[in-house]
Amino acid sequence: MTQKPKFALLPLGGCGEIGMNMTILFAGDETFFIDCGALFPDDSQPGVQLILPGFSWLTSEKIKPTAWLITHGHEDHIGGLPYFFPRFPAPIYTSGFAAALIEAKFKDLSIKKYKMKVWKDGEQTRIGKTKVIPFDVNHSIPHSMGLLVDTPHGRLLHTGDYRIDPDPFEKTRTDDRIRQVVKGRRPDVMMSDSTNAFVEGSDLSERDLEEDFEKIMHEATGAVVVASFSSNIWRAQTIIDAARSSGRGVHILGRGTRRNVGIAQELGVLNTRGVEILEDKDMKRRDREKVCILCTGSQGEQFSGLHRLAYDSVSYFKLDWGDHVVFSARSIPGNEKSIIYLTNQLCRQGVKVITAREADIHVSGHGFQDDLKACIKAANPRFFMPVHGEYRHLQKHGYLAHEVGMPEENTVLAENGDVVEITKRKIRISKRVANNRSYVSQGGVYHDEGQVSRSRSQIAQNGLVCVSVLFSKANYRIKGEPRVSVFGVPIQAGVVADVLPDLVRKSADKTKDRKDGNDKTFAEELRIQVRRYIESICRFRCIVQIMMHRA
Amino acid sequence: MTQKPKFALLPLGGCGEIGMNMTILFAGDETFFIDCGALFPDDSQPGVQLILPGFSWLTSEKIKPTAWLITHGHEDHIGGLPYFFPRFPAPIYTSGFAAALIEAKFKDLSIKKYKMKVWKDGEQTRIGKTKVIPFDVNHSIPHSMGLLVDTPHGRLLHTGDYRIDPDPFEKTRTDDRIRQVVKGRRPDVMMSDSTNAFVEGSDLSERDLEEDFEKIMHEATGAVVVASFSSNIWRAQTIIDAARSSGRGVHILGRGTRRNVGIAQELGVLNTRGVEILEDKDMKRRDREKVCILCTGSQGEQFSGLHRLAYDSVSYFKLDWGDHVVFSARSIPGNEKSIIYLTNQLCRQGVKVITAREADIHVSGHGFQDDLKACIKAANPRFFMPVHGEYRHLQKHGYLAHEVGMPEENTVLAENGDVVEITKRKIRISKRVANNRSYVSQGGVYHDEGQVSRSRSQIAQNGLVCVSVLFSKANYRIKGEPRVSVFGVPIQAGVVADVLPDLVRKSADKTKDRKDGNDKTFAEELRIQVRRYIESICRFRCIVQIMMHRA
Repeated sequence: MTQKPKFALLPLGGCGEIGMNMTILFAGDETFFIDCGALFPDDSQPGVQLILPGFSWLTSEKIKPTAWLITHGHEDHIGGLPYFFPRFPAPIYTSGFAAALIEAKFKDLSIKKYKMKVWKDGEQTRIGKTKVIPFDVNHSIPHSMGLLVDTPHGRLLHTGDYRIDPDPFEKTRTDDRIRQVVKGRRPDVMMSDSTNAFVEGSDLSERDLEEDFEKIMHEATGAVVVASFSSNIWRAQTIIDAARSSGRGVHILGRGTRRNVGIAQELGVLNTRGVEILEDKDMKRRDREKVCILCTGSQGEQFSGLHRLAYDSVSYFKLDWGDHVVFSARSIPGNEKSIIYLTNQLCRQGVKVITAREADIHVSGHGFQDDLKACIKAANPRFFMPVHGEYRHLQKHGYLAHEVGMPEENTVLAENGDVVEITKRKIRISKRVANNRSYVSQGGVYHDEGQVSRSRSQIAQNGLVCVSVLFSKANYRIKGEPRVSVFGVPIQAGVVADVLPDLVRKSADKTKDRKDGNDKTFAEELRIQVRRYIESICRFRCIVQIMMHRA
Repeated sequence: MTQKPKFALLPLGGCGEIGMNMTILFAGDETFFIDCGALFPDDSQPGVQLILPGFSWLTSEKIKPTAWLITHGHEDHIGGLPYFFPRFPAPIYTSGFAAALIEAKFKDLSIKKYKMKVWKDGEQTRIGKTKVIPFDVNHSIPHSMGLLVDTPHGRLLHTGDYRIDPDPFEKTRTDDRIRQVVKGRRPDVMMSDSTNAFVEGSDLSERDLEEDFEKIMHEATGAVVVASFSSNIWRAQTIIDAARSSGRGVHILGRGTRRNVGIAQELGVLNTRGVEILEDKDMKRRDREKVCILCTGSQGEQFSGLHRLAYDSVSYFKLDWGDHVVFSARSIPGNEKSIIYLTNQLCRQGVKVITAREADIHVSGHGFQDDLKACIKAANPRFFMPVHGEYRHLQKHGYLAHEVGMPEENTVLAENGDVVEITKRKIRISKRVANNRSYVSQGGVYHDEGQVSRSRSQIAQNGLVCVSVLFSKANYRIKGEPRVSVFGVPIQAGVVADVLPDLVRKSADKTKDRKDGNDKTFAEELRIQVRRYIESICRFRCIVQIMMHRA
């Protein structure tokens, strides 16, 4: 940037969508990269594995982070890190559970050279000229943190993702913790999670769910399968507690769930004492009424434990009439169809499906309106910047802040790519820098900024016809047989084998003696003719590619 | 069919999904095709315009309809008719509003030769040996009908789509009407709409919505835009009534809405007396507080009136701060993302968005559990077949029937392609015939059964590399330069221009003197090598197509 602002925030993700959260904090000559999340693609982006914030602006401006600050270990906060980190190396500061998940990701992609500092709640840390105070917030993964970033140029309170749990596993309620942290350190600006800005009131405590889980486990005559997110260790605890008191053993199904449960046990945030953990080999002979299975699949994910159960590909356990399947998560927008397919398949197996409609088996990790307002009041910031939401969420969160006394002009509604400058007197969007996205495809190593996946989508929409032709060296007299390959265009085999080659021959014949122009213009003419012809026979405006040889 | 059952039902659509409803009724030597709906594709089917029931089985078995019976004019009941009718011509029996919509569709596709009989409520009609009694049901489009099909071999009650409106525009409640129709004519089997089988209780009356619409129109300081389905004439009536009493004029935006409002006025089912209808030219100078706009767009549809307003492409009217937009419809699964994009765009314009969360501005056209149970009781059929739903809806509807006394063995849960045979003593799935789908792509004329769109999806997932090579006539010695075209694979320009042609040359060189095998096996070897190489450099398992010339 030509003129670097003294104190500014630049969201690169999470302001305009739910997912891929990432913010750059500029404070004098220090720059902090806060979180680096991924977004999961939907069907409109075929062949894309992950969507990440774009990094081209950071590269072109040669922005280098002083440090990475990571609030917690959810994919929408760490999923992009393995791809960004090698380009933007700096020490990583985060909590224990997130550190374990990041390490696993780095290992998968052979990233070996990095420094990671594991934070504890309240552990004041000096990074250069800046003091950072991480603090526990209530959320659906252990060790989720908010940050007070106290720079010489201004003080940022970043909530991370949070809710207020009235009786939290995390020991302190988010609003109380914020109140302690900001004491004598009023934030200049507060960034706060807007995910549930539209949901009135507040949610139950995680602990309140145990009752309904117990009821389901007591009443079910078959096995009880609970699908949740593998990182939601509090939910795992609730389920394990319910299994314990209803006399069921617990089988942990799936690699991811096993890994996360293992990490949680090591870190001492999950207690499995007094419950029988069932191994694969125990499952075959076990009385179904004494079985609880914990797995993923609440979003209908194809390789999840629940999906494998539904399609009968777990060798040692088959679902049966009388079994109960609990979807213990909300459906993330875009996943509805996958969840519906999976649910129908479970119904065909005679299984009873239980969702949040039928019982209290899920609480959100994101605060409802009452929580959001309570935390704005607790933080009492000078300026307010709602984040982690689509535009409508940010706007609504802005209204909520206004309700608890934030002057309208002290709230900024920024979208990805907006530079938000904060001075003593005001907060404003001072400029807009490039806002794009990166895409990780298939093998997980490639980045681009959309062209490659756009090209795939175009063919998916329109289909492709490739024509390869051999011409004589002297002129455009055709030699041999033109080759035609058709991909996704509704034309008949006969047309491909005979009509199209004929058409190409005739088109070429017409201009065979011409000497003007070159291969390129000739190919272009041929392309247009083939395209028009295909449109005339099947109304399909396909993509046509001409490949030419001369001999 | 080798042995034709005397009395049987074959759902070809609508049993396994919500949409594309179609059922074949076999009764002795008569065959009735009931409804012929379309399903809208999602992003997983790029380039597909409509999905229809498959017709290959009907064709191969030479099934010919005695008549088409169409319950009402929604797309999921008539959308497939223009494509099926030319292959399966027969007289069409339907209601006035549906007839007008079908005629418009036939005109668009130049279908001129057809016989259509327009039915009125209760108009007993003899078709061959069968008597059909159509009767009004409450639903979100005028002239929606249920059918009592009284054949010599059994009696079918088909509800069509319905709810029970306690104070209906259709004059009689569905359950009362069913009771009248079945008097002395107990149905052997009832097919009933399962769309809302999971929703407890019953919904408000359409007329109850007027109050909240009026309130919104009274309070809004700007224009009020209401997005709904263009065929929901009762909703249009409610909105027009509210506009009338709040002193707003009504502007009908969009071709489809105008057409349907016009049809409704001609048929006498919409009353616009006492309300000022605003033409385009009236809009510019009109006080915004005196404007109500009725349009489509509740599903985020790209060419809808609301979409055009949001993206500022209606020349004579611009949205502004203080305007209200009401989404007066539920979101159909699969449309969530489009609706969300549109909502965010409206928020950016400073518009207040109102959904069913904030006010009573929508009732469903499909009965909730209380309605479903009441109609099963009213019809009192011997056997029960839930339709219009995914498997989970059909199953749930089966449970509801059981609650009101239907023995479990008298209910059949059939999916598309199941032949359901009904005898005096029992109902059962006697066999399963091919269950597939047809796809209408782009231009709207082509059908296939999936291969073409699958091929497009594969490329969208994997990308494509086309290689064209010229070999000498004598052996596989390469001549000239291999041509490489890349679609949607993340490899760099240099690789395409130099590395890949080089690789092809080298691969060819290795085997240039071999005489065994043929072009095909040689091309296959080349294909595998190119594919492996691309995978090695970018981990992308793309589709590779080799095209060969000899000269």
